[in-house]
Amino acid sequence: MTQTRQEILEQSAVLARVITENRDLAVRCAEAIREADIRCCLIAARGTSDNAATYAKYLLGAQNRLLVGLAAPTLYTFYQSPPRLRNALVIGVSQSGASTDIVSVLKDARDQGALTVGITNTEDSPLARVSDFVLPCLAGEEKAVAATKTYTSELACIALLSAALAEDSQRLDELKLLPGAVEQAMALEAEAESLAQRYSYAASALVLSRGYNLATAFEIALKMKELTYAQIQAYSTADFMHGPLASVSEGFPVIAVATSGALYENLMESLGQVKERGADLLVISDREEARALGRFSLAVPSVPEWISPIVNIIPGQWLAHSLALSKGFDPDRPRALRKITLTV
Amino acid sequence: MTQTRQEILEQSAVLARVITENRDLAVRCAEAIREADIRCCLIAARGTSDNAATYAKYLLGAQNRLLVGLAAPTLYTFYQSPPRLRNALVIGVSQSGASTDIVSVLKDARDQGALTVGITNTEDSPLARVSDFVLPCLAGEEKAVAATKTYTSELACIALLSAALAEDSQRLDELKLLPGAVEQAMALEAEAESLAQRYSYAASALVLSRGYNLATAFEIALKMKELTYAQIQAYSTADFMHGPLASVSEGFPVIAVATSGALYENLMESLGQVKERGADLLVISDREEARALGRFSLAVPSVPEWISPIVNIIPGQWLAHSLALSKGFDPDRPRALRKITLTV
Repeated sequence: MTQTRQEILEQSAVLARVITENRDLAVRCAEAIREADIRCCLIAARGTSDNAATYAKYLLGAQNRLLVGLAAPTLYTFYQSPPRLRNALVIGVSQSGASTDIVSVLKDARDQGALTVGITNTEDSPLARVSDFVLPCLAGEEKAVAATKTYTSELACIALLSAALAEDSQRLDELKLLPGAVEQAMALEAEAESLAQRYSYAASALVLSRGYNLATAFEIALKMKELTYAQIQAYSTADFMHGPLASVSEGFPVIAVATSGALYENLMESLGQVKERGADLLVISDREEARALGRFSLAVPSVPEWISPIVNIIPGQWLAHSLALSKGFDPDRPRALRKITLTV
Repeated sequence: MTQTRQEILEQSAVLARVITENRDLAVRCAEAIREADIRCCLIAARGTSDNAATYAKYLLGAQNRLLVGLAAPTLYTFYQSPPRLRNALVIGVSQSGASTDIVSVLKDARDQGALTVGITNTEDSPLARVSDFVLPCLAGEEKAVAATKTYTSELACIALLSAALAEDSQRLDELKLLPGAVEQAMALEAEAESLAQRYSYAASALVLSRGYNLATAFEIALKMKELTYAQIQAYSTADFMHGPLASVSEGFPVIAVATSGALYENLMESLGQVKERGADLLVISDREEARALGRFSLAVPSVPEWISPIVNIIPGQWLAHSLALSKGFDPDRPRALRKITLTV
């Protein structure tokens, strides 16, 4: 068994820990945020954690009405002119907590007097040391180079913080659906493995979604790129339908995430047009109707839209893992990838 | 002569108009921004204008120390929960001024009492009507579906606003270099045409840069996708070097923008690694040393880094235009693209 597979399988247990053990901490952190008269939020992250930041941008926007900006660490490291941060909340997301440029964003924020929150799997890390509050991923050591269990744990920390910030006890309770739903999604491994064979010789593919699950599309694409070295592009259907749609020719592989929620009907309409162009469409959905649109499909369990990205990524992780094996690559040792992202 | 070619050739004259005729307007707009005790900035845009927004994110960050967030219009149209905007500046960028979701971001901002600025080529547009200040692109009607002259004009409006906001008369003067430099870059048409032949059968390609010119990489990729229907991906080298680099195999086409400035040495180091992997590298640069790194190169004139994206995009526009012709497509009538982006 690969290390990657082992860690994918641990996710249900990790999520159960996060939503139980971090709950009080998230409530205290939310209180501090409410007291700080926050007017906007800056999130610093790279790689997989950057996809978690995209989820946070939509979630904190829609549920907490926060204006969220994603940090450009280059402003700190090269242009040496970081933004002014009065009344700002600054969140750093990093599995290792050691990414120097992410730490520099948080360190500057703290120096400016902003409230800082670190979401990291390493409680004794440089990121944790410059954070006023640390939400730990509680995922245990992640040995595989490609992040899986820390990604879903980062999302869960963000979901917990958002619900606590809204003082929304119903949402806090909905989080309890996650371990079971993720466990169910785990069972898609064999199906994903058989579907992955189809992509063995695909030089490129597209991944589409929108809204909360735009993060899922980005993360599926990133995992497939990291492990299989193909050209995979993710798009919001909002951007895709105006222009890039033209690049879809007969038989072109497209993976779409279209689960229940505010964007479902809109996604169905867009996917209808993608199908009309003859795409080889694989639909990840909790709905029969959406799955019927695809030439292939993977059925994920149904959960409230705001936490669905934590479930919907699982079949994507399986696809990337199986495709790597099918192409003869070692998922545990992807070339050109290091565990700790040290960007200069 | 195609309409697209005609409009590419108009850019020098359009820029001369923008930096002269909009200067006082930008100064007045900057005064209003300084008076409004702005703490963060939200920018709403789609498609080509979204790449202008990326330029604005770096420029307003580095030169004006503004925390900039790029709006997720879906928060308005589907989740119906827009962010709270106390002490925020909200900028809408849209050639037509008619993109409904961009207008809805500005309309909500105005209702919330935020200061709104519209950058548009259509002074009598819905976007203009909900903007406290309008910076007009002054590009004349853009008939070609793919935006070229309105893109560089949008960048110039942003550059003008940034310099005015910093009360930086040296930078305001540097803008005068633009019409001449862009005129010089125009002369790359024949070279770009001959290089474009090489890509006639490339199913995919990559475009790389970082910092201010990340916007240039995105826009080159978008223009090539819109006009030639190939799979083209743009990356910040900061993200590319950790993971996606692995997808570069011997002979894989990579276009890089590496001009003088704070990131030059860093870009050179990254491109060295890309070259080591055997990429078929085309370098767009003002420096002999950088061009020598590429198997092919295009020499752009040297201007200060902060305005270089307005010059560096020109050879990219030529490449996309020539490649479309070389593949037998009509650049004026790209499939699946409409002039006005009406996203729901």
